[in-house]
Amino acid sequence: MEIKALRLEFESEIKNKINQKTKPIGSLGLLENTALQLALIQSNKANTLISHISINKPTALVFAGDHGISEEGVSIAPSCVTRQMVQNFMAGGAAINCFCQANNIEFNVIDAGIIEPITEASSELPSNLINMRLGAGTKNFVHESAMTMEQVELGLSYGEQVVTPIIKNGSNLIILGEMGIGNTSSATAITACLTHTEVDLCVGVGTGITAEQLFKKQTLIDKALARFDSDNPLTVLKEVGGFEIVEITGAILAAAQAGVCVLVDGFIVSAAALVACKINSNVRDYLIFAHESHEFGHQLLLRHLKAKPLLNLGLRLGEGTGAAVALPLLTAAAAFYNNMASFEDAGVTV
Amino acid sequence: MEIKALRLEFESEIKNKINQKTKPIGSLGLLENTALQLALIQSNKANTLISHISINKPTALVFAGDHGISEEGVSIAPSCVTRQMVQNFMAGGAAINCFCQANNIEFNVIDAGIIEPITEASSELPSNLINMRLGAGTKNFVHESAMTMEQVELGLSYGEQVVTPIIKNGSNLIILGEMGIGNTSSATAITACLTHTEVDLCVGVGTGITAEQLFKKQTLIDKALARFDSDNPLTVLKEVGGFEIVEITGAILAAAQAGVCVLVDGFIVSAAALVACKINSNVRDYLIFAHESHEFGHQLLLRHLKAKPLLNLGLRLGEGTGAAVALPLLTAAAAFYNNMASFEDAGVTV
Repeated sequence: MEIKALRLEFESEIKNKINQKTKPIGSLGLLENTALQLALIQSNKANTLISHISINKPTALVFAGDHGISEEGVSIAPSCVTRQMVQNFMAGGAAINCFCQANNIEFNVIDAGIIEPITEASSELPSNLINMRLGAGTKNFVHESAMTMEQVELGLSYGEQVVTPIIKNGSNLIILGEMGIGNTSSATAITACLTHTEVDLCVGVGTGITAEQLFKKQTLIDKALARFDSDNPLTVLKEVGGFEIVEITGAILAAAQAGVCVLVDGFIVSAAALVACKINSNVRDYLIFAHESHEFGHQLLLRHLKAKPLLNLGLRLGEGTGAAVALPLLTAAAAFYNNMASFEDAGVTV
Repeated sequence: MEIKALRLEFESEIKNKINQKTKPIGSLGLLENTALQLALIQSNKANTLISHISINKPTALVFAGDHGISEEGVSIAPSCVTRQMVQNFMAGGAAINCFCQANNIEFNVIDAGIIEPITEASSELPSNLINMRLGAGTKNFVHESAMTMEQVELGLSYGEQVVTPIIKNGSNLIILGEMGIGNTSSATAITACLTHTEVDLCVGVGTGITAEQLFKKQTLIDKALARFDSDNPLTVLKEVGGFEIVEITGAILAAAQAGVCVLVDGFIVSAAALVACKINSNVRDYLIFAHESHEFGHQLLLRHLKAKPLLNLGLRLGEGTGAAVALPLLTAAAAFYNNMASFEDAGVTV
């Protein structure tokens, strides 16, 4: 797979354009970094310096999967809630639906491997559900590999199969989210393993477990990581990954390969992004991080990827909600890049 | 002036509605606080529990004024830039114009007292400029009162005169911004005085001065505060305020009196909000803070008002830019409050 690092030949021209806007240099903070990154990505794809940043058909893809580790009671809800929430997504009643509607984001949910598939007659399936099932939930990774290497490879391919037609259909901004009871355990294990950090520095309360559950979660993840000795990203996915995390990794790789920007939600999607960056470090250039979670593991992971997310709203819901509410900040970055006057245009004293 | 404190009789019903949504309790973080505050404000105004939060005709009002202290060289730009930027606002070329356009915000600029008025024939004046001039810039408050008490009172009335017809015309969200070379010095002096804090703990680099200028700024503000001994909010405005800050204070008081929410931008607008809260503490209930600046004085002021802003993007431009880019978060809060399914609706296990 070839993923091109962003060529920086356009960087000085883009920075110069931003610095000529009628504002003190740097005074739009992270919005300036965002405009620079979007302009660089789009100039690389166009193979010429773009004059306008465009954000076309932003599309949220929420990957859902179940996790064997949830049988250990380290989550606030039982596995059946994953499927119930998928149905809630399909019916349009979840937070992510509301935010996608508010911000004009197209929405799809992907069954990457929830325990019990959505069984309604396929003709009645709403078009926003995509079936890319790798199985009926992962194995409990405390005791055995979460999945096989064949499932990892199939999952990466499924992620690509989801994202490629969406990009071909004109989307140039992919927003990634997830649903899966137990998946902060998987994200924590991945982060600890790939950043070579002790589990106790990565573990957090997820959507809201007790201190007792937190200690148990740490102990179980430690036990899982003691089962194998590798930081190969594919091996880590096989050992402690989740079906939705594998497919998100594949989606990120495919978007980066197509030269398209990915807006990364919270801890779980960031863990998939970390795996994708370990597979190919050029991926990092295409990632914008939406929301910094209170999870220690996420903060550590962000530092590791030198990422400064746009938002810190105390969200801990997943679903892509942090990314969906961050989209208007990308729109704002594009708006000032595209439309703001230069000092010369406006006759303002430099 | 009567400003009603928000009656909390609706609070438990609103919280209950939020907690029944298909998400762990509190997992939408600051968006939940925002939805609660908006629903409380609108329920109080309607005198009944509202079922839907509405955001109607959000309107940005950017007040511009010049400052005598700018002759001391404590800003990155000369006073003539205030007027140039007002013309830039009128022409639609500034950052705030871009963000208002991106987020469907109506926009007006108010000349609260720039040195040289916009002199085009009045018939040619664009409708988005409102003349509410209190003079040709304030006096240099290092040596004398910035303005007279008559100007303070007229300015509060002008602020009310700007905001009242906009609310009568159907806006229920007022977004406040400012432009005025030298106005972080005024905001710093106001904050130090009204929070009883030493100037060296409040002073900052504004839009980007040098360390030498910073020290000079601190020394000059100390000198100004030594001229008088009062923490009466009107006296503080008279002594160290700015024309735009006085009118913003009046606009905030009028919006709160009308039971309308105000989205507060950065340090300067927050300083006006602090004055308004000192005039009538019930004002605080109607304020949502958009952006936390890197200015120490702003952080101190926010703690004093027990405010946690929605954004921290490293903006230091003013103009209302932080508030304009924060608006979609209020829309998102309304969207989940209005449209998200309850556990019961969605058949999700609690």
